[in-house]
Amino acid sequence: MKILVIGGVAAGTKAAAKLKRENRADEVTIITKSKDISYAGCGLPYYIGNLIRSREQLIVNTPANFSGLTGVKILTETEVTNINRSDKTVQAIDLNTDQVSIFSYDKLIIATGAEPVKPPIDGIDLKGVFFMRTPDDAVALKSAVEGEVKRAIVVGGGFIGLEVAENLIRQNVKVSVLDMAEHILPGFDPEIAEYVENHLANKGIMTFTNTKLEAILGTDKVEKVKTGKRAMKADAVILSLGIRTNTAFLKDTGIELMPNHTIKVNSYLQTNDEDIYAIGDCACVTNRITNVPAWSPMGSSANTEGRITAKNINNKSVTYSGVLGTGIAKFPELNVGRTGLTEADAVKNGYDVVSVIAVVDDKAHYYPEASNFIVKMIADKSSKKFLGIQVLGEGAVDKMIDIAVTALTMGATLEDLENMDFAYAPPFSTAIHPFSHTINVLLNKINGEFETITPTAYKNGEVSEYKIIDASIQPSIEGATYIDLSKVNGEIPEFKKDDKLLLICSKGKRAYLLQNRLKYFGYTNTLVLEGGTLFNEIN
Amino acid sequence: MKILVIGGVAAGTKAAAKLKRENRADEVTIITKSKDISYAGCGLPYYIGNLIRSREQLIVNTPANFSGLTGVKILTETEVTNINRSDKTVQAIDLNTDQVSIFSYDKLIIATGAEPVKPPIDGIDLKGVFFMRTPDDAVALKSAVEGEVKRAIVVGGGFIGLEVAENLIRQNVKVSVLDMAEHILPGFDPEIAEYVENHLANKGIMTFTNTKLEAILGTDKVEKVKTGKRAMKADAVILSLGIRTNTAFLKDTGIELMPNHTIKVNSYLQTNDEDIYAIGDCACVTNRITNVPAWSPMGSSANTEGRITAKNINNKSVTYSGVLGTGIAKFPELNVGRTGLTEADAVKNGYDVVSVIAVVDDKAHYYPEASNFIVKMIADKSSKKFLGIQVLGEGAVDKMIDIAVTALTMGATLEDLENMDFAYAPPFSTAIHPFSHTINVLLNKINGEFETITPTAYKNGEVSEYKIIDASIQPSIEGATYIDLSKVNGEIPEFKKDDKLLLICSKGKRAYLLQNRLKYFGYTNTLVLEGGTLFNEIN
Repeated sequence: MKILVIGGVAAGTKAAAKLKRENRADEVTIITKSKDISYAGCGLPYYIGNLIRSREQLIVNTPANFSGLTGVKILTETEVTNINRSDKTVQAIDLNTDQVSIFSYDKLIIATGAEPVKPPIDGIDLKGVFFMRTPDDAVALKSAVEGEVKRAIVVGGGFIGLEVAENLIRQNVKVSVLDMAEHILPGFDPEIAEYVENHLANKGIMTFTNTKLEAILGTDKVEKVKTGKRAMKADAVILSLGIRTNTAFLKDTGIELMPNHTIKVNSYLQTNDEDIYAIGDCACVTNRITNVPAWSPMGSSANTEGRITAKNINNKSVTYSGVLGTGIAKFPELNVGRTGLTEADAVKNGYDVVSVIAVVDDKAHYYPEASNFIVKMIADKSSKKFLGIQVLGEGAVDKMIDIAVTALTMGATLEDLENMDFAYAPPFSTAIHPFSHTINVLLNKINGEFETITPTAYKNGEVSEYKIIDASIQPSIEGATYIDLSKVNGEIPEFKKDDKLLLICSKGKRAYLLQNRLKYFGYTNTLVLEGGTLFNEIN
Repeated sequence: MKILVIGGVAAGTKAAAKLKRENRADEVTIITKSKDISYAGCGLPYYIGNLIRSREQLIVNTPANFSGLTGVKILTETEVTNINRSDKTVQAIDLNTDQVSIFSYDKLIIATGAEPVKPPIDGIDLKGVFFMRTPDDAVALKSAVEGEVKRAIVVGGGFIGLEVAENLIRQNVKVSVLDMAEHILPGFDPEIAEYVENHLANKGIMTFTNTKLEAILGTDKVEKVKTGKRAMKADAVILSLGIRTNTAFLKDTGIELMPNHTIKVNSYLQTNDEDIYAIGDCACVTNRITNVPAWSPMGSSANTEGRITAKNINNKSVTYSGVLGTGIAKFPELNVGRTGLTEADAVKNGYDVVSVIAVVDDKAHYYPEASNFIVKMIADKSSKKFLGIQVLGEGAVDKMIDIAVTALTMGATLEDLENMDFAYAPPFSTAIHPFSHTINVLLNKINGEFETITPTAYKNGEVSEYKIIDASIQPSIEGATYIDLSKVNGEIPEFKKDDKLLLICSKGKRAYLLQNRLKYFGYTNTLVLEGGTLFNEIN
């Protein structure tokens, strides 16, 4: 069988290598526009920060190396320009010689990936404007950073843009981040993104949201960036405005695309032509929870999809249940991860949404480097189905996310997850695991044992008429009434039973304990501020 | 309602505090023998290593503090000596005054925990003999270490013993570990334990297995330890021979015990007396996978059990599905974790057992501090039910274990776990997650696509007639025939098609690729050594 694979980064190389292992008799050829294959797209920011020192480390395999290891043929710097489905051929042009060739296939895999969005603005081609998609992009920016760049502006506050920002400050470059949207970090709920914005500001990365890039100014090279609000000086501009699939060449092929130009596939990863598969960044898969179409251009799902396709071409009938929108990134002193549905996603999908923000210890509090996780957990109130999680912290955010991924994959309810026998020793975790702890808090909220106000509602002034009660270990909230939990053994003379009391402590736990006690003594209008002073700014 | 709790460390304090939150009107009293409550038993080894600096940090709550926070009454240094079930009272003695009192209860919770096994040998009471169970034990050993102790012997190679050993070498004390059993690390399969023994030896901790402590020698203080084989010099001996439940006082109460002196409970954590619960180290719960009785004396399950009991006493009817035998520990440059069934457990429980040892990257290979996980994964061959995992590595072993805990809790099959959308970014993981990677390897083995010999079978000489083929990137196995995978494009003249070939590389992956290719070219007797040179000693 002849199998052509268009594209040679994560999905394409994975599919091709696995195809040859499934049946070495198959003739498998990768055709790719670029000169590199199989490069570490997710590693590029760390090359800027010099955590990865040489370009070679970014290249997982050279074409020659990869062919030797797998038996796959590779044509680099060759662009597929059309597909003729009726005679099962593709037309490709050698980018060095302009020679056009025709290649026949029995099965075709489209893994052409995506390219950075390049907005049509003035100055876009000036020296000092960078993208972050290929090893060459990273090499160009790093050499500029090692040269004269002292002040950079990253445009686009997604994971890649922020990872680049982190690595630039590691190289002592002053960095600001612009984002057109109300918040950075698409895929996170707004209050979580806002916390990260404040954190980044404290670490020296200013984010300017609701800020549109209008032009890049300069004569020979970048000098300023013009936004709707102001002009900002910069020696370098890194554009990280998202990506757009490389699917224009499919225009006249009859292969069905989604409105966002991704390729529509079924659960076997086949396009509307059963001999043509689409995988990786150019394909639109499904969300595992909601079963609605989901574009998830990640190296991890690209690999999984490549593997599945190779099996399916070998008649193994593997279905792909899709993605959870899982993502994680390392920022300065803060790891940031998510999986499943955000609160906004869950509402949009018609769930009876309940969520909580809990601040929990990440390891035994007495162990060195113990810190907190800030966890937002989302569930369906009536079925108690677990729907998603967002986690921030200095520690093992990846662990919290991967537990959630496993639970979401298995369709767990909160009650299924309530009393798990997680790994505990002081260097790793707490006796009641932070994941379990958050489950308990959310169940208490659902059951009415924990009555709260969310950070968003608090910020929106929904409890402005409440009296603030400081429930911390020591008085720490200016202007609030301090109540020492351990002294509360009956009614509190200064409050009426129906006074509206907003209970706040550092993380939420003491306020919860105080609420529990006040309710017992007859107070009927208490609310705990989720996330306490650690997450919220109190005023 | 009057509720008595006997015992005040993890399970007892958790139950008591939660009881008062469930219903503050209840009168909840903790009666405990010791003067401390709520101490960090799992933190004691780190106090020795000075990672935890003050005794105060080991005490989560003083009795006064705890009472203030919760409303629970506490009687310390008071020992319960009998239970009178017919009139629902307990008899207790004040250990300072010898005064005997009677306390009545509506509900009774037994959380008396366990004490270190103290063998009846000569020298057991000599100065320089230590246990590791209470803060005072830790204080005594630490002050000895800061004094004259230069050479210590830990007796017992379980988690606590080895954690003490790690912390002693951190304090520049020479340490050896003795264990009566064939291997250290009960709860791990032998080849995994043996790998850890070799690793510890490389880090300066010698383990002597099959070695029974016969006597401790010395005039005023410890000078030597006598074993069946030799006498070894030592300034200190730390006995970590396991624990024995504090249940002797139940002898005439009619409360049913298991043969190992743990208290038998049902899924509501009730003893055979429905008004008496038993939780924590003194109770025998069930294994969540096999439903057979399981003793799991861990701080984490103690907390969970305390919480459940408080709810059940308040008519919430929560059942406890039991434990997975999860455990984790930090040793020098190696974290060691497990959950679910070992291979030996699984065989004993009648499963059709299949397992694999895989060596997988723990994060992107080009990222600083990338290392390996050594993973042993166990499943049922016919149903493909996932049964257990053991993981070793410098990195996030806790993450691997907690994913497995979630999967086991949900009763997942390997196929359920095959294509999960785990968190990936280079600082945290690999594009194909190490857990997924191991699942894939085990499924390949089950499906016959990966034909292997296990480290145990290799060590037992089961493939001694096989010709060793070095499949590494560069020749690295002395006396083996080197084959460069990338040059294999047909038959290999020097081998017959039915030659017995044992394929070995550093981790197993290249050997797998070579096997795949050799099978295609007609070789019928190839086996890959699981774990490669990284896990096995080749000779």
